[in-house]
Amino acid sequence: MAKRLGAQTLMMGQPVGVAAWASIAGKKEKQGPLGSLFDRVFEDTMCGQQTWEQAEVHMQKCAVLSAANKLKLPLEALQLLFAGDLVNQCTASSYASRGTELPYAGLYGACSTMAEGLAMAACMVDGGFVDRACAAASSHFCTAERQYRFPLDYGGQRTSTAQWTATAAGACILTREPAEVVITQACFGRVVDLGVTDVNNMGAAMAPAAYDTISHVLEDTKTAPTDYDAIVTGDLGVIGSNLLLSLFDRDGIDLSEVHQDCGKLLYGPKQDTHAGGSGCGCSAAVLCASLLEKVKTGEYTRILFGGTGALMSPTSVQQGESIPGICHAVVLEHRGA
Amino acid sequence: MAKRLGAQTLMMGQPVGVAAWASIAGKKEKQGPLGSLFDRVFEDTMCGQQTWEQAEVHMQKCAVLSAANKLKLPLEALQLLFAGDLVNQCTASSYASRGTELPYAGLYGACSTMAEGLAMAACMVDGGFVDRACAAASSHFCTAERQYRFPLDYGGQRTSTAQWTATAAGACILTREPAEVVITQACFGRVVDLGVTDVNNMGAAMAPAAYDTISHVLEDTKTAPTDYDAIVTGDLGVIGSNLLLSLFDRDGIDLSEVHQDCGKLLYGPKQDTHAGGSGCGCSAAVLCASLLEKVKTGEYTRILFGGTGALMSPTSVQQGESIPGICHAVVLEHRGA
Repeated sequence: MAKRLGAQTLMMGQPVGVAAWASIAGKKEKQGPLGSLFDRVFEDTMCGQQTWEQAEVHMQKCAVLSAANKLKLPLEALQLLFAGDLVNQCTASSYASRGTELPYAGLYGACSTMAEGLAMAACMVDGGFVDRACAAASSHFCTAERQYRFPLDYGGQRTSTAQWTATAAGACILTREPAEVVITQACFGRVVDLGVTDVNNMGAAMAPAAYDTISHVLEDTKTAPTDYDAIVTGDLGVIGSNLLLSLFDRDGIDLSEVHQDCGKLLYGPKQDTHAGGSGCGCSAAVLCASLLEKVKTGEYTRILFGGTGALMSPTSVQQGESIPGICHAVVLEHRGA
Repeated sequence: MAKRLGAQTLMMGQPVGVAAWASIAGKKEKQGPLGSLFDRVFEDTMCGQQTWEQAEVHMQKCAVLSAANKLKLPLEALQLLFAGDLVNQCTASSYASRGTELPYAGLYGACSTMAEGLAMAACMVDGGFVDRACAAASSHFCTAERQYRFPLDYGGQRTSTAQWTATAAGACILTREPAEVVITQACFGRVVDLGVTDVNNMGAAMAPAAYDTISHVLEDTKTAPTDYDAIVTGDLGVIGSNLLLSLFDRDGIDLSEVHQDCGKLLYGPKQDTHAGGSGCGCSAAVLCASLLEKVKTGEYTRILFGGTGALMSPTSVQQGESIPGICHAVVLEHRGA
């Protein structure tokens, strides 16, 4: 029987299988260190569509379809879809879901969306409500830039603390059947806001939320960082990652041995992304291209995957508000055959 | 044990109690037929804050606090919060959640958000993951107008098919303990898009989604409209409601005896709202001010509450996309002492 451990962590009654996953990426992501691992790459920024927004819709749809194809299942067999993105009113997900015949629950968690969706989908499967559920997320550099920052044509200069919104998508299918990769725990995070107002330094805004959630999971499950092969955040980038390590350091905990960050994994040092990658698609694609594969093969026996989101909007920032951060997490484990 | 009935409806293992609820409204809503029923009314559009956006944050926070107060519970005892709104990046909910210390999962379902949150929260409680969970939603006329339409100062004329975004919020606390009002079934809807492109006629865009979900629930649970004291949509308005009745009429089903719509219930005929109310706060406040009270007293023994959302954005509409609709639903029943 499922239960709540400690203050915040949700323990699955039975491990929930991650039966299939798929990752989609753009040209720049293909040029990065994970370039050869994506299921599909669109070299064309438009993905053959008429607008960047439609391109993102297309990428998210491809991720879900590609994951379903791996199980040779029609889309409606996925039973329930949790999805989200950064576009105003989450239209990338809503339009991607259109025509799928799949019950769809829209999420908003900014860059934490993939983890939020996995947590939700795992609970729905473990609770017995559905046999299968899908979690998906996407982002697109061009849809994000024009919505959050400047028209691309301006060629505006980016600060050294800025992160690069990934053109990428990922999807996972969860199931009650046994699988080599399972979710054993999930944790919905709390909003943490320490007053950061610089939208070009979202890593700093999100690091305290990552610290809050990871600390809770460790405490609730009575585990130490060394009990995990990796504790992966997505996406704090270079600056947020350093802050996270400092926060744990104050507690006398060395996270550096096991910590990784999707924003640091997606791009290489010569790709001029400054502090690293970001966007809902960044952690979704890194999870589906690399992390889940390593759990599947047993290279990793247990990892903590924590998606981090900066929950501001251009309007809230213009109005002088600081940036609330959040981190949702799931524990992924390898199960031998 | 929970299970999926038919294609789409989720059956709770045990009825999930709706232990407390609260509704907040603005001045215009107070002047409507439900005016005396709200827990708190803000006559001032700013709710004492600096911006309309902060006002909406404040209203949503008040709704959650007010519901918790009725149970004499501190906020953290609610264990998990599902919330959403219409503001870009769902900032009304994220900022409302800030400082609550409550794990928070952001949702995007446009005007269907309250029903989406109730469905999610019910499953989390029934699945054993939490003892209590809260679902909340809000909208504000002024935040919506300036984001979706024109600066208020323009005084732009509204079409006769347009709906009026409610300045309102609602929150419900679900629990595993017995209660006079319970949720027995939930249904996440599918995206339905029949090609409506007129953003001033969202009732027409959402009616087919309402038809789809309500039909599925009736079929999956083997019930007829007469098995419900009310089948309530929120918010199709006058035009969407008529379309919904027509769609059922084609199937030889007369929904007119039991159908109600939150968009029609919130405002009186002389309030110049044209086709009726809308916004996440409309169905949330009507549910919490009126419908749940009627289920509690036993005036209604069983109702189907279907939240309807139009999932477009200003950008998607400018790009020529049609408007995808969705309807999420829960079945609410009266339980005698």
